[in-house]
Amino acid sequence: MSKSIFYHAGCPVCISVEYDIVNLIGSNNVEIVNIGENKSRIPEAEAAGVKSVPALVTSNGNALHINFGASMADVKA
Amino acid sequence: MSKSIFYHAGCPVCISVEYDIVNLIGSNNVEIVNIGENKSRIPEAEAAGVKSVPALVTSNGNALHINFGASMADVKA
Repeated sequence: MSKSIFYHAGCPVCISVEYDIVNLIGSNNVEIVNIGENKSRIPEAEAAGVKSVPALVTSNGNALHINFGASMADVKA
Repeated sequence: MSKSIFYHAGCPVCISVEYDIVNLIGSNNVEIVNIGENKSRIPEAEAAGVKSVPALVTSNGNALHINFGASMADVKA
């Protein structure tokens, strides 16, 4: 199974949800990407349907927006 | 580990997310509760911090709102 990707931007909501996601699915099954620091990964996240962070893109390509930390516009600002 | 609980209300967004969550964490690790059909479980969901469905309440008590299907007000209506 390919990994899920968890996109976040370092916000408090993001960090809390990251902890829960790693707990739920295991750190080996998810790649953590901080698109606040690593802006080159923003286009890939948007292409996967990510509208806000934190978000988990599953290995079958679904974007799951989990709670709400920041919009993509906020992340790009 | 105690189970997480996935609350939903049968909406299309809920069903899609339910499929992803079961895939990610395994059906043995999550209880699925349809609070649209089983309204007696609504108070427990609200006490856990659920504001909309679908939502996953983790075993450590965090409410993760995943995408957006319906508000609790919609579910009660």
